[in-house]
Amino acid sequence: MAVGAPSVFPLAPIDGIRVGITSAGVRKIGRRDLVVFELAEGSSVAATFTTNAFCAAPVTIAKQHLATGNGVRFLLINTGNANAGTGEPGMQAAMQCCRALATQVGCSVEQVLPFSTGVIGELLPAERVIAALPSVLSDLDPNNWEGAAHGIMTTDTRPKGATRSLMINGKTIRISGISKGSGMIKPNMATMLGFLATDAAIAQDDLQAMLSRSVHRSFNSITVDGDTSTNDACIAVATGLSGVVIDSLSRDAFENALREVCEELAQAIVRDGEGATKFVSVRVSSAQDEGEARRVAYAVAESPLVKTALFASDPNWGRILAAVGRAGVQHLDVEGVTVTLNGTVIATRGAVDPGYTEEAGQAAMAPEDIVIDICLGRGSAEATIWTTDLSYDYVKINADYRT
Amino acid sequence: MAVGAPSVFPLAPIDGIRVGITSAGVRKIGRRDLVVFELAEGSSVAATFTTNAFCAAPVTIAKQHLATGNGVRFLLINTGNANAGTGEPGMQAAMQCCRALATQVGCSVEQVLPFSTGVIGELLPAERVIAALPSVLSDLDPNNWEGAAHGIMTTDTRPKGATRSLMINGKTIRISGISKGSGMIKPNMATMLGFLATDAAIAQDDLQAMLSRSVHRSFNSITVDGDTSTNDACIAVATGLSGVVIDSLSRDAFENALREVCEELAQAIVRDGEGATKFVSVRVSSAQDEGEARRVAYAVAESPLVKTALFASDPNWGRILAAVGRAGVQHLDVEGVTVTLNGTVIATRGAVDPGYTEEAGQAAMAPEDIVIDICLGRGSAEATIWTTDLSYDYVKINADYRT
Repeated sequence: MAVGAPSVFPLAPIDGIRVGITSAGVRKIGRRDLVVFELAEGSSVAATFTTNAFCAAPVTIAKQHLATGNGVRFLLINTGNANAGTGEPGMQAAMQCCRALATQVGCSVEQVLPFSTGVIGELLPAERVIAALPSVLSDLDPNNWEGAAHGIMTTDTRPKGATRSLMINGKTIRISGISKGSGMIKPNMATMLGFLATDAAIAQDDLQAMLSRSVHRSFNSITVDGDTSTNDACIAVATGLSGVVIDSLSRDAFENALREVCEELAQAIVRDGEGATKFVSVRVSSAQDEGEARRVAYAVAESPLVKTALFASDPNWGRILAAVGRAGVQHLDVEGVTVTLNGTVIATRGAVDPGYTEEAGQAAMAPEDIVIDICLGRGSAEATIWTTDLSYDYVKINADYRT
Repeated sequence: MAVGAPSVFPLAPIDGIRVGITSAGVRKIGRRDLVVFELAEGSSVAATFTTNAFCAAPVTIAKQHLATGNGVRFLLINTGNANAGTGEPGMQAAMQCCRALATQVGCSVEQVLPFSTGVIGELLPAERVIAALPSVLSDLDPNNWEGAAHGIMTTDTRPKGATRSLMINGKTIRISGISKGSGMIKPNMATMLGFLATDAAIAQDDLQAMLSRSVHRSFNSITVDGDTSTNDACIAVATGLSGVVIDSLSRDAFENALREVCEELAQAIVRDGEGATKFVSVRVSSAQDEGEARRVAYAVAESPLVKTALFASDPNWGRILAAVGRAGVQHLDVEGVTVTLNGTVIATRGAVDPGYTEEAGQAAMAPEDIVIDICLGRGSAEATIWTTDLSYDYVKINADYRT
């Protein structure tokens, strides 16, 4: 059901990063469900986490370990079990896994960040993860990114990865990343994860600022079903082993490349969204501020009526206007609003455009990739949100999943 | 697909109210699609309207006419065409209909309020409505409420009505009402309408205050798909012909009865919600204020993942917790949250309840009527929102409707 071209593999390896994958049998025997990233000593690590109040045990621990500032050396990721809604026993299980890994590699437990994705509310079988640690550590290799992209999948139908390289001061630096997710949240299979690394050298604070801005415009600008997961996390690592230091001159170029990798990974999640048959960009322009633009874009992107019309390839502009009209924009002058669908103007001045024909609308809705442009006519701010349609298969996947 | 028992007809007639129905052929020949309410002179009229910025032409005109304070004498309602997204020509079409009716009955145009429901974006065929006015006026009768309940339907699968009578100062007064709607919005078929009347005598301001509070706890406490229509309107009329004046002593009893009628009509809309197989009450208690309780209840009631789990009769408490966790409650202590499903405690202290079993959860989810109780453990405010599940048929109805 995925929309558009899949990610291109292999990804460029990143000097200072080794990746291992193995089968721990967390939920299914034989499934490659355990991934470890080894980070070169001295790497900067930035992270963003879910804002859900019910965050999972590994999210709480990863935040605590990062906050110690002790220098992260390992990311330990399992699929099949989200270790969310598991209370204190869940915290202990996650800590047992971190401690066992730290002991085997000879680092401190705070230097290990745990991540989990999968079914909510079942205790993580720590003993299976721990038993598989020797195997996953023996698999560590700089060229294992594609395996890791497979290893972190849950209901995803395809692995997601992206790479950029750029020249800075005559030297090539690289950014590679992988992501998983097929809806913003599937608490049974919770949910979106992203892991990025570069061989550039960047101070921790700088990397965090750049990652936060990039995530805002990528992973935090997508919606499949409007839900926010308990396990969302995105990590960026800068090993510095290229010897290239990102300074004030190279900063913008680097951040642009980082954001492009994030966008490509985020869009890959939408393209693989549950039941998706359309990849939809909702661009809101001429808003008074970015918050307003995002509210309108989300109202349209999350409207079940707009999404079912997209599934039907029905140019139902009335549903788009109705979603814009209820988005809570103060004193919206509907006379100033213009809506364009893949370049075809469908609504102007709060009503159907005089030049619009049903045939033109049908033609505009036919492609898999749809751009809905909404000009509010009240300012200069803008925002883009990416989403999917709402299909029978979305209901099927989510009604059938656990039972 | 409707859930539970249908409304009971006939409704009690209201002294001072006559109702007429006829076929104007607005969209389909032979469909009884035109309804007129005649109100006794001197009736108080209160109203609430959609907050959608793209409100339909009849909503704009009804507001303007009400604001003149000239005393409403007629409600003119058509189905088949929402007269929304139609710009200035739509305003003119609605005014032509009002003017023609006013001329025929000998009142001023401001004493006619127009209402439309049906497809968005097509011009109302005023000439068909006007040609049918003699027929609808000759049909006026106090006992036509059931016909009107049928006459205002669009995708509704059954007519919706409710009646209450109560003794005040030794005399019986009555409240009757009808509603239509099968989703909070279907802009192609826009959407929720409610018409209520009583023979009690109530000052305009009092009636407006009571209606606004009743609508808040009924029509404004339901959601099928989270969308708000361009045409929503609810009208309450007090003819006063019972001779009973609502005073400070009888005020609470009357308002309770009015709210009960509104709740019954609003719940009938949810029970007839598009594709509904469940009728779901989401009760949030122990919140810091009512706004917080409503935000949490709506987050759960509108979560596609909770709704698909309800469709599957799957006691997926993780999805409920995740929706609560993302509802934007400041400093929510997840340790204080308890979730109960039809009386079965499923989650306590942010995790699955120790006494919970999958069998108990399955049994709790089996009935058509589901109550989700969420205790936030932080205050004394509460709110209840009524909703449906999300089924294949919701997608089918909304993907297939217009094409």
